[in-house]
Amino acid sequence: MFEAAEVGNKISKEDYDREVPILREELLAAQLELRDAKFPVLIVIGGVDGAGKGETVNTLLAWMDPRYVETFALGPPTDEERERPSYWRFWRALPPRGKIGIFFGGWHSAPIVDRAYRNIDDAEMERQLGEVVAFERMLAADGVLFLKFWMHLSKKRQRKRLRALEKDKRTRWRVTATDWAHFEIYDRFARISAQALRRTSTAEAPWTIVEASDRRYQLLTVGRLLRDRLRAHLAAAAAPRPALPAPATVATPTSDGITILSSLDLTRTIEENAYGERLELCQGRLNLLARRATKDGVSTVIVYEGVDAAGKGGNIRRVTAALDARMYHIIPVAAPTEEERRYPYLWRFWRHLPRAGRFAIFDRSWYGRVLVERVEGFCRPADWMRAYTEINDFEEQLVGHGVVLVKFWLQIGKAEQLRRFEDRAATNFKRFKITDDDWRNRDRWDAYEQAVNDMVERTSTEHAPWTLVATNDKRFARIQALETLHAAISRAL
Amino acid sequence: MFEAAEVGNKISKEDYDREVPILREELLAAQLELRDAKFPVLIVIGGVDGAGKGETVNTLLAWMDPRYVETFALGPPTDEERERPSYWRFWRALPPRGKIGIFFGGWHSAPIVDRAYRNIDDAEMERQLGEVVAFERMLAADGVLFLKFWMHLSKKRQRKRLRALEKDKRTRWRVTATDWAHFEIYDRFARISAQALRRTSTAEAPWTIVEASDRRYQLLTVGRLLRDRLRAHLAAAAAPRPALPAPATVATPTSDGITILSSLDLTRTIEENAYGERLELCQGRLNLLARRATKDGVSTVIVYEGVDAAGKGGNIRRVTAALDARMYHIIPVAAPTEEERRYPYLWRFWRHLPRAGRFAIFDRSWYGRVLVERVEGFCRPADWMRAYTEINDFEEQLVGHGVVLVKFWLQIGKAEQLRRFEDRAATNFKRFKITDDDWRNRDRWDAYEQAVNDMVERTSTEHAPWTLVATNDKRFARIQALETLHAAISRAL
Repeated sequence: MFEAAEVGNKISKEDYDREVPILREELLAAQLELRDAKFPVLIVIGGVDGAGKGETVNTLLAWMDPRYVETFALGPPTDEERERPSYWRFWRALPPRGKIGIFFGGWHSAPIVDRAYRNIDDAEMERQLGEVVAFERMLAADGVLFLKFWMHLSKKRQRKRLRALEKDKRTRWRVTATDWAHFEIYDRFARISAQALRRTSTAEAPWTIVEASDRRYQLLTVGRLLRDRLRAHLAAAAAPRPALPAPATVATPTSDGITILSSLDLTRTIEENAYGERLELCQGRLNLLARRATKDGVSTVIVYEGVDAAGKGGNIRRVTAALDARMYHIIPVAAPTEEERRYPYLWRFWRHLPRAGRFAIFDRSWYGRVLVERVEGFCRPADWMRAYTEINDFEEQLVGHGVVLVKFWLQIGKAEQLRRFEDRAATNFKRFKITDDDWRNRDRWDAYEQAVNDMVERTSTEHAPWTLVATNDKRFARIQALETLHAAISRAL
Repeated sequence: MFEAAEVGNKISKEDYDREVPILREELLAAQLELRDAKFPVLIVIGGVDGAGKGETVNTLLAWMDPRYVETFALGPPTDEERERPSYWRFWRALPPRGKIGIFFGGWHSAPIVDRAYRNIDDAEMERQLGEVVAFERMLAADGVLFLKFWMHLSKKRQRKRLRALEKDKRTRWRVTATDWAHFEIYDRFARISAQALRRTSTAEAPWTIVEASDRRYQLLTVGRLLRDRLRAHLAAAAAPRPALPAPATVATPTSDGITILSSLDLTRTIEENAYGERLELCQGRLNLLARRATKDGVSTVIVYEGVDAAGKGGNIRRVTAALDARMYHIIPVAAPTEEERRYPYLWRFWRHLPRAGRFAIFDRSWYGRVLVERVEGFCRPADWMRAYTEINDFEEQLVGHGVVLVKFWLQIGKAEQLRRFEDRAATNFKRFKITDDDWRNRDRWDAYEQAVNDMVERTSTEHAPWTLVATNDKRFARIQALETLHAAISRAL
């Protein structure tokens, strides 16, 4: 794989000096156009030590307008980062649309380095590389332009380069014990890198291997490719969006009309006296358990979705009443802010992930894309179609990090909804709860029901199952939510 | 001071049960109105241990809609927090407009507790309390509604309460060794609290001392006061803004026409050959020094302000060329985003403060308020008038934390600006740099000059002086910036 990058590519000083001023102007012009574009650029810089990764990036920044470039180098994770799934630190470092983000190593580093040092086995590396591919595929689908450069030096050259750096007192600081430790395992590192590059070189985010023995060649290669791909992406983004083929419907046809929702028994109730007692008992138990979870650093993410007027707010209140106010955070999800719209879809949820031992309660969630956005046509079918996979990946990362994830769908019957709407409209202090939107959504009852059935079918996974809650009787629903939550946290402790 | 809170206030169960349902509805209604209001509510809960602070807040949240309340309890600072000035953690926890933020102890805790344990002396406590007052005054001027509750228990009652909590196995966990250690120094703690309360009870953010021996009394007192002050603040915010008295002009009248700007020598130049050599030397030295700063964890904040076309961008580029891309971040400051507008003015700058050892370069900054916002009338005179003090406080916190703060004002002559505008308009790849705004600003040259003179006079402090840079000769200006920066960092190391 690296043979082509050991052929001795070179650029003469004259050619370099002639081309650089032109290239700089072209890069600046493309960057200027990018500022108004609807996508960000992600540059990943990988490769062996001493291959001039830092120098390349510094030169690139000297060529461009550094005000619209953000650079991220992996350091040891901070404690706030350690308390979240490992990709949290990358999500928070993503550049917004119109900017360029440069990542040294980025999400590719851990699997390669851990495998080279035999901290993980091959299967685990493959699993992690699968995460890399899924992450990049999602971002690319969101419009992100990827450029991934792997800086390559032959073994002989690397030794020479490290020695030269060490000899010069101005560059000596750059060579660390880690660099020599890496060099010791050059062959293994090369083999594993090649495997990782192959696995993560996709149509959306291909690697470019760059021979790093001649600095001029290296710089021009990176600069030209950035210019060309940026121009092409700008042109493509400016072109009218092609009509995508309509996605195959995801609904599982039911020949007997029985669906997940239709088989939910909405008639279950709990007697009022029994309710008071059960509620107190459930809240007391949850309170004790939550305290243990906090102590053990186990965090909990709760998702509330449901039909309008199904009683989400009241249900959430019964849960928070059992928790200490210092330990939870409720995130009401509405239309994204201007800032949130500048990032890929899931960014607005990643930013709210709780610290270790805390609770985050999402009042509506990332499922908006496959519910309201799908039904109302706020996104293209291709977008909500891929959202199922993206959501499953996201949730798998949460659960993989040890987060307790509980998802509630609150369902009432159509007649019961009408009764509640009318009650709200008639009661003074409830009137604010009913809007025109609610009536409009009601008119699309069947479309929503279809979307919910699809959602549950596709995202009720082993690690993150949906809990369907019948809320014709609100009291019954509250007890069910509290008990489900208790069981889920218990299992995790 | 606490005598009034030891009289044995009590509410009967009947009175309580009758009032609570009404109060809850009133609180919910006020909270609903708050959601569309232009201000947030900040509730600070202080007081002795065992005085039911947590219980009060939990009850308050059960009464209200917890989705629009955010609760913040002081824990040990994370490493990301330790790397910034101490108020950073409070800034990032501030609620946006329309929400309620509840802070346990908050910014008042450290001075009181540190003084009670004799970690700091009286003068230092007074200094820190001064910061508290300045912080709250600024937020209040921005519209924040403050409610500060101090929960008080007499010494006898506190002992009884802690013992009772300890005896019950459901509440035993709540009593920690710290609580008893605090109790040991009850008298000193009471004396110091009283001093702190007096000092931080201002018209904008007064303390309310609440007797905490009867829980029903305590809850109703807090709930009622929240309802009343919230209603009053909503009414005041909805009323037409009173015409404020025009502030006294801040310009220092000069009888001889000589001002800070007019006395700046714009004619200084550097010869082209000498420039190349000096530039390389300066950048090399800065590079070495920056590396040391990174190693020592010293962070640097650079502010760039200046006349249009004074060459900010090019100057910044000469600085970043000396730095490693992984170590700096440029923050181009433009109109605030929708999200930023929901927070007090300085929030949008606090959020970008660098980690230890990093550089943050602000391309325009918090000075926008006393420059463009003042001249263009984007804010009221009272707002930009108080901004001088707020900015000085902010910068003092930076410098007090050990941050190197360097502020550049780039100035060119009026004729030179015209020459550059015309050159830009005539040159293809520079045309994007010149907009209608630039010509408009030029028409207001005198007003801007006045604003700059005032700004320098009022914010060039000992700890954060302005460096005025004459940029008729861009090369000269670049060398000056690099040398100033080098000197400032040298002094700090």
